[in-house]
Amino acid sequence: MALVNEHFLKLPNNYLFADIAKRVNAFKAQHPKADVISLGIGDVTRPLCEAVRTAMHEAVDEMGSSDTFHGYGPEQGYAFLREAIVKGDYLSRGLHIDSSEVFVNDGAKSDTGNFQELIRWDNSIGVTDPIYPVYIDSNAMIGRAGVVEGGRWSNVTYFPCTAENGFVPALPSSRVDVIYLCYPNNPTGTVLSKAELRKWVNYALHNDALIFYDSAYEAYIQDDETPHSIYEIKGARKCAIEFRSFSKTAGFTGVRCGYTIVPKEVTVATLAGERVPLQGLWHRRQCTKFNGASYVSQRGAAATYTPAGREQVKATIAYYMDNARMMLEVLRAKGWRVWGGENAPYLWVQVPEGETSWRFFERMLYGAQVVCTPGVGFGPSGEGYVRLTAFGSRERTEEALERIVKL
Amino acid sequence: MALVNEHFLKLPNNYLFADIAKRVNAFKAQHPKADVISLGIGDVTRPLCEAVRTAMHEAVDEMGSSDTFHGYGPEQGYAFLREAIVKGDYLSRGLHIDSSEVFVNDGAKSDTGNFQELIRWDNSIGVTDPIYPVYIDSNAMIGRAGVVEGGRWSNVTYFPCTAENGFVPALPSSRVDVIYLCYPNNPTGTVLSKAELRKWVNYALHNDALIFYDSAYEAYIQDDETPHSIYEIKGARKCAIEFRSFSKTAGFTGVRCGYTIVPKEVTVATLAGERVPLQGLWHRRQCTKFNGASYVSQRGAAATYTPAGREQVKATIAYYMDNARMMLEVLRAKGWRVWGGENAPYLWVQVPEGETSWRFFERMLYGAQVVCTPGVGFGPSGEGYVRLTAFGSRERTEEALERIVKL
Repeated sequence: MALVNEHFLKLPNNYLFADIAKRVNAFKAQHPKADVISLGIGDVTRPLCEAVRTAMHEAVDEMGSSDTFHGYGPEQGYAFLREAIVKGDYLSRGLHIDSSEVFVNDGAKSDTGNFQELIRWDNSIGVTDPIYPVYIDSNAMIGRAGVVEGGRWSNVTYFPCTAENGFVPALPSSRVDVIYLCYPNNPTGTVLSKAELRKWVNYALHNDALIFYDSAYEAYIQDDETPHSIYEIKGARKCAIEFRSFSKTAGFTGVRCGYTIVPKEVTVATLAGERVPLQGLWHRRQCTKFNGASYVSQRGAAATYTPAGREQVKATIAYYMDNARMMLEVLRAKGWRVWGGENAPYLWVQVPEGETSWRFFERMLYGAQVVCTPGVGFGPSGEGYVRLTAFGSRERTEEALERIVKL
Repeated sequence: MALVNEHFLKLPNNYLFADIAKRVNAFKAQHPKADVISLGIGDVTRPLCEAVRTAMHEAVDEMGSSDTFHGYGPEQGYAFLREAIVKGDYLSRGLHIDSSEVFVNDGAKSDTGNFQELIRWDNSIGVTDPIYPVYIDSNAMIGRAGVVEGGRWSNVTYFPCTAENGFVPALPSSRVDVIYLCYPNNPTGTVLSKAELRKWVNYALHNDALIFYDSAYEAYIQDDETPHSIYEIKGARKCAIEFRSFSKTAGFTGVRCGYTIVPKEVTVATLAGERVPLQGLWHRRQCTKFNGASYVSQRGAAATYTPAGREQVKATIAYYMDNARMMLEVLRAKGWRVWGGENAPYLWVQVPEGETSWRFFERMLYGAQVVCTPGVGFGPSGEGYVRLTAFGSRERTEEALERIVKL
């Protein structure tokens, strides 16, 4: 008899963005003429830049002739892209990554979800809280997260990030085998200084733990001090996997391309105490369950490293970060408590004392026709906050702000 | 301490196509002037058809304007593609599939590898033998396949397909919870009649088993009797998942798009005896670990259902099948025992009595500079056979045949 993987049944039925969509649709049904502006979902809106489109057109043309046709590519990604990544994202910052340590994928969600397959199912995990739900849900599906009790997973260690600790998570007091960090952070938009990140790397080195480091938003960092990569920290090559994406960097949310760095020095233990490098295991995993990202997407991604591509991508990020700056100014001038938005496209807004994040969401929707994301959807420490994104157009973002401050 | 998932360490280190590449490279190093022709790897070589390229160009252009830009799409795939699939691949054959039962992916390898996540880790699996290695390897990674003993996985039931049984697998004599079938078959190129496929569906219905049906090569079926879809069999909607791909149908091996059909009636049991529909679980899985296929790839895939696209795709398949026909004729005229090639782009060739498939591979490589795939690489029942593919150009395929028959 075919039996279900019952761990799937432990997942809550409600999915944050589906819940939001349902409530927004209910509002629209009642107010068919309302002009709703979404500052909710973290998706880009600006067009793909010209350099990327030109490269993608060329790639499609190549596919039209048997001499230049591309069938199956390397599961790990084409050398032209892996080498561009090594040079453009790491060597340019003085970091040495071998191109065999770069694994191109169809977006960071896949790899942040799948990478946990390499680890024993009963290893313990720890996450900053609030958090991108994929980290926990992918672990829940294999039984590693336990069960939900009062909004918390029983086998997950949460590192709260709130106004009280300045959104700087404290190191775990009990043992954690795998730690998920995301900086610049989704959803809070906050960053971790080099000194703070070093504490985590040292924790991992001393406790033989792994760090899964999601830096999908590194392109939004504006200051010179904030680390772009965890490999800026000494020792991280021994304990950290880094996930990156072209989604937010270059508007690839619909194009699908990202990459994962698995340094050769990162090893995990067998029960017998032998060390196994993760790089080879991940290669094996990808060769079995993945067939490479689209050639057209990879050519597009490579174009972001050309001089023209770099400039154009930067301009789009500047556009979003101008939105963020304006949002911060307007909201702070009105006395709101807001974090993030300086090195990330997300603003984390404290809701008035005594109000829940869902209640505030409703008030924004019904009072200003603006959609935000309730913080509690990202974890227990997100209660009392909402997330706003800077991914809208200038005009709509201004309009949304005008309405919000009138509330 | 982070511990490795030790099931990964049970996987054999050698990977069939990597082994072949190594031996071919060794030959080329010794014979730098040799003109090697590959009839080995199952990858297409003909260009993408015009209708597909035009649609992909248009999609790239859409991405260049904020009015028509596409960010995150539905994880399940765009409605325009799901509806085209329903109409073009199923309704056209009198089969009713709801578009919510269609899950677009980045290629069938991903879903055939990932779908086993929904099933309890200790459910038993059965595979036809020889077989596409992904089915077993993806189960091995979660511990479901057991360990390799004498070239066989200890917890896998093999259904031998050989000349002796006319490549028609017999039903299992012991209980199997999940059955992998692939028809038209990779690697043997053989098909299963409706009557034979019905036996499997009835087995699954009577034993509460699941069938994972890979029909990635259905577009190569030339006769009118062979089933294109398992849903042509009564009752299959209660027990079968079907995997399909644009890879071989439309030359998408480098573009990456496929789909999986999960009928709402397919359920699996909990230990408590409740029934859980897989359609909802797979949707949850995809929302967590996948972010949709590239918009550009989906637009390209949809173009294969337009009248022009259909004609152009058919012409490419006819090209490959003309190769296959020629290969069959030439080899059979020389007295070789060959199967497949009539409804599939693969030919399954029996090697001379007493020779192994690797020994024959070496003889073909050194004697004729032609690369084939040793059958034993696909499973124990593949010993004594090699696979040839019809995916080459006409000229090179003819040249290869001339050399082979001179051997």
